[in-house]
Amino acid sequence: ALSLATIASAQVKPEDQIKFRKAGYSFMSWNMGKIKSNLEGTYDAAQVTAAANAIAGIANSGMGALFGAGTDKDVGSQKTRVKPELFQNMPEVGKLAGDFSGAANNLAKVAATGDAAAVKTAFGDLGKTCKACHDKFREE
Amino acid sequence: ALSLATIASAQVKPEDQIKFRKAGYSFMSWNMGKIKSNLEGTYDAAQVTAAANAIAGIANSGMGALFGAGTDKDVGSQKTRVKPELFQNMPEVGKLAGDFSGAANNLAKVAATGDAAAVKTAFGDLGKTCKACHDKFREE
Ligand code: HEC
Ligand code: HEC
Repeated sequence: ALSLATIASAQVKPEDQIKFRKAGYSFMSWNMGKIKSNLEGTYDAAQVTAAANAIAGIANSGMGALFGAGTDKDVGSQKTRVKPELFQNMPEVGKLAGDFSGAANNLAKVAATGDAAAVKTAFGDLGKTCKACHDKFREE
Repeated sequence: ALSLATIASAQVKPEDQIKFRKAGYSFMSWNMGKIKSNLEGTYDAAQVTAAANAIAGIANSGMGALFGAGTDKDVGSQKTRVKPELFQNMPEVGKLAGDFSGAANNLAKVAATGDAAAVKTAFGDLGKTCKACHDKFREE
């Protein structure tokens, strides 16, 4: 994984790395919002499954490569809210990222069963992994 | 599909719809770039599969819901490059979007086989579906 990250980040300018990671997180949050609406209102299993698959696809895409050298502060037109601490705590970030991918894959698996109660639990578990990273490594 | 689009766009402000659709396209383009690099350099089947799955997940997530009323022009902090024509040609947009999802799903299927030559063809086919929409419905 480290070598992939190195290769992929070498090919993308720091400014674009920040843009792409914000895009990935932002698109996931839209899909989290859809799942939340389904859990609170009428449950549409197809919409939930599609949203969970989008989140899992993004979670498994190797976003670590978008935290390369020079992306610890604003670059060009791209503002970042990453805390510089992230870059000094890579083993911990790797653990949090692993928890996150695992929870995203679990949600996708559970969504495919159409069991709304189980989705609610898996969705809550995934949300905790987003929050765990934000609490430590994202500015307010 | 229309009712889903209506429900989901009703829940998301026009400004955020523009933000989320740009995020989805932007994140796909990062993954397209990774696949291109793999086809031009050393081929890493796991990275290509992950990228193709991220693209397919986004392509299947119902982005049509992000082209709701009031998103045909800049809103708040969000600039848009969509052409107003998109909103007057929904059947044609639906056809292009279907071609795009089909090509994204095909690329994900082919990527899983690890056959780089077949991925090259499927990747080219997908790229044509991006371009077909941009040529008609996105400003320069
Ligand atoms: C391993 C760390 C980590 C995980 C896991 C994580 N995030 Fe984040 N998130 C960040 C960091 C760091 C930023 C700040 C990125 C920047 O500004 O460069 C961020 C930014 C965001 C943003 C703002 C994006 C923007 O447009 O500026 C949203 C929304 C978000 N995350 C949602 C989520 C959701 C939803 C999940 C889980 C499904 C998640 N994040 C999981 C670290 C993480
Ligand atoms: C059905 C139409 C359609 C398809 C299919 C499509 N796009 Fe787009 N794309 C658009 C429109 C419309 C915009 C302008 C969005 C806006 O500015 O609100 C856009 C914007 C973009 C942007 C700029 C995003 C930003 O940050 O402003 C990129 C990059 C992009 N598309 C890449 C792709 C790629 C790669 C694919 C295929 C894998 C693709 N698009 C498929 C219609 C499409």
